[in-house]
This record gives sequence, structure tokens and C-alpha cells, in this order.
Amino acid sequence: MSLLVVGSIALDSVRTPCGEAEDVLGGSAVYFCCAAALFTQTRLVGVVGDDFPEAHRKLLAQRGVDARGLVVRRGRTFRWRGAYEGDMSSARTVAVELNVFRDFEPEIPAEFRDSSFAFLANGSPALQRHVRRQLERRAFVVADTMNHWIENARDELRALLAEVDGVVLNDAEARSLSGRQNLAHAAKEILAMGPRLVVIKKGEHGAVLMTGEEHFAAPAFPTLDVVDPTGAGDSFAGGMMGCLASAGRSDLSTLRRAIVYGSVVASFAVEGFSVAGLCAADRSAVDARFRKLVDMMRVEG
Amino acid sequence: MSLLVVGSIALDSVRTPCGEAEDVLGGSAVYFCCAAALFTQTRLVGVVGDDFPEAHRKLLAQRGVDARGLVVRRGRTFRWRGAYEGDMSSARTVAVELNVFRDFEPEIPAEFRDSSFAFLANGSPALQRHVRRQLERRAFVVADTMNHWIENARDELRALLAEVDGVVLNDAEARSLSGRQNLAHAAKEILAMGPRLVVIKKGEHGAVLMTGEEHFAAPAFPTLDVVDPTGAGDSFAGGMMGCLASAGRSDLSTLRRAIVYGSVVASFAVEGFSVAGLCAADRSAVDARFRKLVDMMRVEG
Repeated sequence: MSLLVVGSIALDSVRTPCGEAEDVLGGSAVYFCCAAALFTQTRLVGVVGDDFPEAHRKLLAQRGVDARGLVVRRGRTFRWRGAYEGDMSSARTVAVELNVFRDFEPEIPAEFRDSSFAFLANGSPALQRHVRRQLERRAFVVADTMNHWIENARDELRALLAEVDGVVLNDAEARSLSGRQNLAHAAKEILAMGPRLVVIKKGEHGAVLMTGEEHFAAPAFPTLDVVDPTGAGDSFAGGMMGCLASAGRSDLSTLRRAIVYGSVVASFAVEGFSVAGLCAADRSAVDARFRKLVDMMRVEG
Repeated sequence: MSLLVVGSIALDSVRTPCGEAEDVLGGSAVYFCCAAALFTQTRLVGVVGDDFPEAHRKLLAQRGVDARGLVVRRGRTFRWRGAYEGDMSSARTVAVELNVFRDFEPEIPAEFRDSSFAFLANGSPALQRHVRRQLERRAFVVADTMNHWIENARDELRALLAEVDGVVLNDAEARSLSGRQNLAHAAKEILAMGPRLVVIKKGEHGAVLMTGEEHFAAPAFPTLDVVDPTGAGDSFAGGMMGCLASAGRSDLSTLRRAIVYGSVVASFAVEGFSVAGLCAADRSAVDARFRKLVDMMRVEG
């Protein structure tokens, strides 16, 4: 079934203990698309400046991304410069230039409005709600968020949470949003804000899925080659949503598989700068890691 | 099969956001015994002062602990005073009085030397090796350690690791011992030091088991009622070793079950001060959480 993503398209400059990359393809929607491409085609809505390299556009086309929602504005593309140190568990932002992304007010093209699955990548909750309203009511919609919005747009964020099916956020964000330290408590509080499911991403510790009925925990795939963690969370979401959209279902059993696929896809994403790790993987490599990860969780009950 | 533990017996004073407790029963060997008691009898080797309350001795007897290895010395029992704040992820030690534990040189009673399973709780690697030498070669021996020994007795610790079957340590300790940030790398390095298996405890993020052949990851049981995390790691080890000893096996499939049981038992341990959480649990409560945790990990592959 059709999958839509709305989010940022960026030129990233990143330094990690493994090296550095300058003005490479990045952004939440880009990582999402390249991850979801391992499962299904993705409809992309985003904005770039007139400096956006043709090579990047070609790469997205090669990944089967439907870029009819990609708007080009006069000016420079969104840029992010960041660095990772030590265990690379968190990025230090060195500089951000919003550029054409500053006034991004996404209009969903008419031919994308029937999307069955949609991911609202990190952005202002007001903008995410604006997108949600343009989609069909029956669409399965998952939103990402971050501390900035939790701290500065809490009411709008809570309104958004009542309008989506799911939210993905990291453990620190779940604690901040709920005001609870214990993640099981935090998830309960967030579920009470409206979404049917909460996915808490914990980096090297994997991810948990919580709904009113169940609690599922998946470890991270233990990759030995972490080169650049940028985009891991969006790649996780792309793997998860790509799996759901290709199955055409969002029942609990499929959600569990989707979380494991999300972990697997994120493990490829961190093995290279930009989307190189994702582009180096194919479906058979993803399925091989999926089977390994499922085996890592197997207990004879 | 018979299970032995050698470690500390303490009177703990603990403050957490949930309350405080003064001079309560604690120590690595005590938590281990009370946890393992859910599966099997444990042979305890340790030392207390002549101030050790009779009530504590009775409690151990009620848990079926074989305390013929409990030595009473003139003087005061080992005391630890600590505090937990915020998410209670790490203890702040306020005061330590080693007292009679300072010169503890454990002699294993003759009737304990045939133990099939043994746990060397945290202590100096020299002392742990002294214990190892008194056990039969075919015994399945697992050691705990901590940063203090990694930093101050590295050579002796490496000698110990070549003489035991397994080591349990937390993620920070695994990183420090191996010099590697990535836990998959860290585990490989530690396995190269000699043990057949490495168990890395990650608190709320569960635990991983790594051997030369396999990697297994279990989530923590998501308890809503964390009262006092003291002894969680030793309770984990007690549940794990108790499960192995009661099965009489240490094959990979049993090890996976043992890790899950360790997680479950630790979840009870943190629900009360001292050993109250462990003592409030019975085997049927443990098995119910075991089934829940196994269900939390289930994926249709």
C-alpha cells in the first residue's frame, strides 16, 4: 500500500571518530525514503533550494522514490553540521541553517492524498497537524518529534498526538514528554494522550513498542561497524513503516515484525556516512539480519 | 545440582526517591542467595561481625540457604550507605565500612567443594582466584567484577577470566575492561580473555549474552514499581545461576532461559528495600513474569 513521508531534505556535514563528510545528502525524509525503499516505494514531500545537486535527485529516483512532492525554492537547501564523539550516542549540533526549510508549509499533492500509511518526520507539531489534515481519516499515521517541540510547543504536540495512530520518540524524549523517568510509566502517560501505539527508540539498546494491550521489546542489531549514527532514527522509522505499508496491515503481530525490521534497517544506516549504508543493503541482506535478530530473541518458553 | 556463592554480607543504609532504609540486610551474596532460592538451595560462604542480627540469619534459613560457610568474626559487619536519585540508574556511595570483610579470605568448607555451579560475587580478583582453586575443575564458575578491579587489578582480573566459564558485568564495566565503546566489540575482546560466555547487564535495557557462537538479548521486565535498585545485578545473577543449577545444565538454550529468569528475578528485587521484593515473590509469580517477558520478545519470523 502507498506510503508517504513529509520531512526535511538536507545537506549534512558530519564528523565522527571514523571520518568526516561534507555537504552530503541527509535529512529525516531522505533517510526515511532510502530505508523504506527496501520494502516499498515512498511518496516524498519536502523542499530543497536551487543548489540541490542533481546527483542527489537521481539517487532518490534510483531508490524508487516518488518525488512529485519535492518542491524547489530559490535559495539554499537546509544544512546541518554535527559531530559525534566517544560512543557516538548523541550528536552535537555545530551549526544549523534552515534556509528554504524555514517557511516550509507542506502541501500534499492531490495524487498523494490517498496514502494509506504516512510518516510525519520531526517538525513543528503545527506543521505536522497541517499535514495530517490533508490526509484521509483512515490513513495510518505515525509522527516523530523531538525535545525542542516537547519543551516549546507542548499544547500543539498534545493536540497532534490525539490525531495520529502512533508516535516514535527516543527514551529521553519519552521521559521529557511524560514527566516520568520509568519508561513503562512514560509510555502509559503518552498512550493516554491519544495515540494507539508508542515506539521508544533506545539507540544501541533497541526499541520498545507499547500499546494498551502489549509491550514488545526488540534489541538493536549488534553491528560492529558504526561509522555515522546520523539518520538512524529516521531509518528505523522508514524500515518500520516500509514493512507495514508493504504488508498493508498494522495489526500487533505485523507491528512486532516492523519494529525488528526497523532495528535491522537502522543497523545498515549507521554503517556509512549519509545514505551509503542504506544504499549498500538489499532486501536479502536485510532479511538475513532480520532472521539473525529474531534468533537473538528466541527463548524456548 | 549444587550451587555455591562467595561474596559480601552487609548491613545497608539506602535512600531512594521512594524512601529510606537503615541497616537492612544486603550484600552481593545475600541478594544472590535470596534470588537463587526461587530455584534451588544455595551454599553461602561469607563473613559477618558479631553484631549480625539473628533475624537476618533466620531469614536466610527460611529461604533454604545452606549457611554452613557463614563465618562470624569479632567486630562489625560490612556496612554500605548509598543513595539513588532521578532515574535511579546508578548508586552514589555515601560511606563504606569494610569492617570484618576487610580481611575476608574465604575457605570453602569441605562439604561445599563439590559444588557443580558457583558464583564469585564482586571481590578482588585475587580472592576470587583463591576461591576458584578450591572448587573442582569441572564446576561451572561465573564471576562478577567491578570498575575498581578493572582499574586497579587488571592483570589479576585477566588471570581470573582465563580460569572461569563466564563473567557478568555491566555495560560501563564491559567498555572499561575491553577498551571498546561498541558492546559487540567489547564482548568479543572479553571472550578472547578466556571465558566461554560474557553476560552484559544493562539495567532497564536488559541483558545480553555473548559466546563465541551466539548473541542473545533479553529486555528487562518493565516493572512499574522501582523502589530500590540495590542488589539488582546480584539478583539477576542469582536468578540466572539458580535456573542453571536447578536444570543441571549450561547449554546455550538453557543459558537463554537463565538470562530471562535473571531479568525477571531482578525485577522483583527492585520492588522493595533490601530483600523484601525477592521474598515477596514465589516461583509461580516468577514463572508468570517469565512467560510475559518471553511473550514480549516473540516475533513471528
